[in-house]
Amino acid sequence: MAEQKYIIGIDGGGTKCKARLYSTQDGFLSAGLSGSANPAKHYETAIHSIVEACQNALDNAGLSQLKLSDLDVGMGLAGVNIESCRLQMQNWQHPFKSCFITTDLHIACLGANNQPEGAVIIVGTGSSALLIKDGQSTMLGGHGFPVGDYGSGAWLGFEALRYSLRSMDGLVEASELNQAILKFYNCSAAIEVADLMYNATPSEFARLAPVVFDLAEKGDVAAKNIVQSGAEQITQLTKKLLAQHPARLCMIGGVSERLKPWFAPEIRAQIQSAINQPDHGAVLFALNQLGLSTKI
Amino acid sequence: MAEQKYIIGIDGGGTKCKARLYSTQDGFLSAGLSGSANPAKHYETAIHSIVEACQNALDNAGLSQLKLSDLDVGMGLAGVNIESCRLQMQNWQHPFKSCFITTDLHIACLGANNQPEGAVIIVGTGSSALLIKDGQSTMLGGHGFPVGDYGSGAWLGFEALRYSLRSMDGLVEASELNQAILKFYNCSAAIEVADLMYNATPSEFARLAPVVFDLAEKGDVAAKNIVQSGAEQITQLTKKLLAQHPARLCMIGGVSERLKPWFAPEIRAQIQSAINQPDHGAVLFALNQLGLSTKI
Repeated sequence: MAEQKYIIGIDGGGTKCKARLYSTQDGFLSAGLSGSANPAKHYETAIHSIVEACQNALDNAGLSQLKLSDLDVGMGLAGVNIESCRLQMQNWQHPFKSCFITTDLHIACLGANNQPEGAVIIVGTGSSALLIKDGQSTMLGGHGFPVGDYGSGAWLGFEALRYSLRSMDGLVEASELNQAILKFYNCSAAIEVADLMYNATPSEFARLAPVVFDLAEKGDVAAKNIVQSGAEQITQLTKKLLAQHPARLCMIGGVSERLKPWFAPEIRAQIQSAINQPDHGAVLFALNQLGLSTKI
Repeated sequence: MAEQKYIIGIDGGGTKCKARLYSTQDGFLSAGLSGSANPAKHYETAIHSIVEACQNALDNAGLSQLKLSDLDVGMGLAGVNIESCRLQMQNWQHPFKSCFITTDLHIACLGANNQPEGAVIIVGTGSSALLIKDGQSTMLGGHGFPVGDYGSGAWLGFEALRYSLRSMDGLVEASELNQAILKFYNCSAAIEVADLMYNATPSEFARLAPVVFDLAEKGDVAAKNIVQSGAEQITQLTKKLLAQHPARLCMIGGVSERLKPWFAPEIRAQIQSAINQPDHGAVLFALNQLGLSTKI
């Protein structure tokens, strides 16, 4: 019988870091949480959070006697699609037995499809897509806000704000968005909203997305146009992926559920439910890198 | 005969500060230049640049014996539409006899129309408009990039980049913009351009505007759609101002000349040429504040 291995899958992002502990003998054992782990934003914080999440996972499994050097760790991290960031992470003198690094998108795809190949579309604060087929990865969409991330929460909020500022000036048709946006930001005029949202982060724009959906669902023309345009862009992304015949295609992320009703039925029918979370995907990634079975 | 007064008009912006010296007896005498004078970006630099430009104007007129305390100064400054910035400038313990502060847009309007009332539309890196009628000012458009500034150089470059990134992913129709943008930024793939332009300034986006105009004029569909959409937004702004029957309406700014051919002839016919520069407008503003004749 093969030696028991302890594997940790890390899902690291800007707000939190999640570790999932797996034993090749006993399956999934526990999870551990910690803070921000986006090495492109803050390297020292990220590696600290990763180690802390691993330690918490060991403690939560009652396996505090295990050392970090007993662990094989697979990690999907925001930011490592940037070359300089990936190199910095790869040069980390980590405390683990082994350490495998990939993107957050990759582990999301592995987790959602629960198999090494397939496609995933993430529509949350940002938007992006990944296809894994015949061992090759292809990224689509994304490109970061505000130039990219079409159809995402940040994009929906941004487009609503852009429309509304012009509408408040009387340059385009009136919309219920105008009053809703003034109320949302507790402002009384376009210039106040513009000042407040000058240099706003993607998350701050994304906070407005539920307001846009609410008004679109009520039939406000401007809000509907924005949501439909976002849905159309995500549809294009979906079609592009489907044309490559992925093993499976999932759509995940905080905005995806509210966007789905805006897709044509034939598109909706081809989008499958996510099976597992990204931290499970990170365990799959590590197993794959170690040459172990990924049937878990 | 009234005492001779020396007036300086200041046109202060992010890249340079221009001072125009005027004598109530001898008319315009000289100009003086200095560096950045946007108090919203850097207050100390701005006030330093303003004083330096005034001193240079005195020197250039051979009037070095005059003191700053002999000068009545009117200044139009970027940034002072933001309340906190305007208050800070108003609290400046300035070295002049008197100091009157208004927006860059206001002095542009006064200069271009060479009279206290009228309307101006600025389409440069950003876009905005001002109407002065019956002593009342109304600002339209603007709101800052990227949420506002429709039809501006930054907006044209931004929209071209957004289109092109999706087009390179095969999500929207191909366009000659794709190759032109890769060449312009010396990149070989969408992801490189996206990385390069992540957090780019409005000026950096605006650098791309001539490329968009070139391709639009050659008939590229995507480039034409972007330029037409920008022209349509500026047309809406123009119509809104014309409906208020301004004494005169000018369009100025680095992008305005290339945008004009895209307006309907009846709109073009109502746009008049600028008479003077904003620094002249700043002199007019000071004269007006001092209760002196603005027929200069």
